[in-house]
Amino acid sequence: MELIYKGKTKDVYKLDGNNVLLKFKDDVTGEDGVFDPGANTVGLSIEGAGQSGLRMTKYFFEKMADKDIPTHYVDANIDEVTMTVRSAKVFGKGLEVICRYRAVGSFLRRYGAYCEEGQPLDAFVEVTLKDDDRNDPPINKDGLAQLGLLTTDEYVTLEALTKEISGVVRAELATKGLDLYDIKLEFGRDAESGKIMLIDEISGGNMRVYKDGTYIAPMDLEKLILA
Amino acid sequence: MELIYKGKTKDVYKLDGNNVLLKFKDDVTGEDGVFDPGANTVGLSIEGAGQSGLRMTKYFFEKMADKDIPTHYVDANIDEVTMTVRSAKVFGKGLEVICRYRAVGSFLRRYGAYCEEGQPLDAFVEVTLKDDDRNDPPINKDGLAQLGLLTTDEYVTLEALTKEISGVVRAELATKGLDLYDIKLEFGRDAESGKIMLIDEISGGNMRVYKDGTYIAPMDLEKLILA
Repeated sequence: MELIYKGKTKDVYKLDGNNVLLKFKDDVTGEDGVFDPGANTVGLSIEGAGQSGLRMTKYFFEKMADKDIPTHYVDANIDEVTMTVRSAKVFGKGLEVICRYRAVGSFLRRYGAYCEEGQPLDAFVEVTLKDDDRNDPPINKDGLAQLGLLTTDEYVTLEALTKEISGVVRAELATKGLDLYDIKLEFGRDAESGKIMLIDEISGGNMRVYKDGTYIAPMDLEKLILA
Repeated sequence: MELIYKGKTKDVYKLDGNNVLLKFKDDVTGEDGVFDPGANTVGLSIEGAGQSGLRMTKYFFEKMADKDIPTHYVDANIDEVTMTVRSAKVFGKGLEVICRYRAVGSFLRRYGAYCEEGQPLDAFVEVTLKDDDRNDPPINKDGLAQLGLLTTDEYVTLEALTKEISGVVRAELATKGLDLYDIKLEFGRDAESGKIMLIDEISGGNMRVYKDGTYIAPMDLEKLILA
């Protein structure tokens, strides 16, 4: 298979037709050996992390399919640690769309003058540019339009999808007594239809989940959810 | 007179009734002795800078009054380098509202992956929190609402006022063959009526102006405008 892209936590291979294959790796984002879903660097490698992330992603993407939420998901092979997905064109070099239910992470770092750690937020959505050199700067709706990355209509779609998807994940976690604090999603345009869809993954690696005020690490989360 | 607040570029004194007095200083923002309207620190002191800024501010605030745009301006005393203004309550610890016609400054630093220096922008408005410790983080409309700083309706008012005011300044500069690249405004609520109004100043100190592609420093700008 032809390797198209070597990412931080997964590699991308070309398949026949309009599909690509994602190979989940055991590398996770973080700094100095500590996992951090908001980090831009690979901080450590945990045996089984790729497979664990894939199991979660399969689980949640199938939930989205049940609700007719557009995603790139086609199918997953847990043993091979691969996921087949529809090919997507990202917006520019990629956007991250964050939905926040609690003030933690970069929200707290930026807006700490006006909020307490863990303060509830009402499904607050914000977009950042994927740009390691510029520390993933936040950008507003008009800024995205000015740079030709997303029309204001597309922003409305993106925001609505983000709230819907995050709400599904949050409700699912709540059934296990878990609190979703924030979640980071990626979107792209279907390479064939141009339709906006959820891409990448949904796993502990891109959300912060707490149980009774204690943070739950990604692989522990997977055990709690899929047990 | 009672000193209420000692700012970077002006001091604020209490007056009778609902007014306060702003004393413009010769200190200007910048770094390492170089003027920078986007800087958070006082970089240098230029003799006459306060009086020059006040002359510009008086000129532009009177233009705004002619157009029934709400501002805090009451009157100015050029000799005393003071301006009498209506008392205002700022949003939280203060917001800066930036209107951009060209990609320079922090816009270019943040979004340089998607724009060229000096690229035209369509009166792009963004808001940053005045928070030196956190480098004046940008914040979107929903974020301001989440933090209780500004309702979404108030944001719409603020954005419309920003575009209107910036448009007046831009048109005025254009009559002298000058290009407004960006301008930073501050707003507050009238302490008496609660109405949103433009506060602080409008001078070379809070805008970037170019002539035939060359940046014009604040005091040179004042000479060109008021000549």
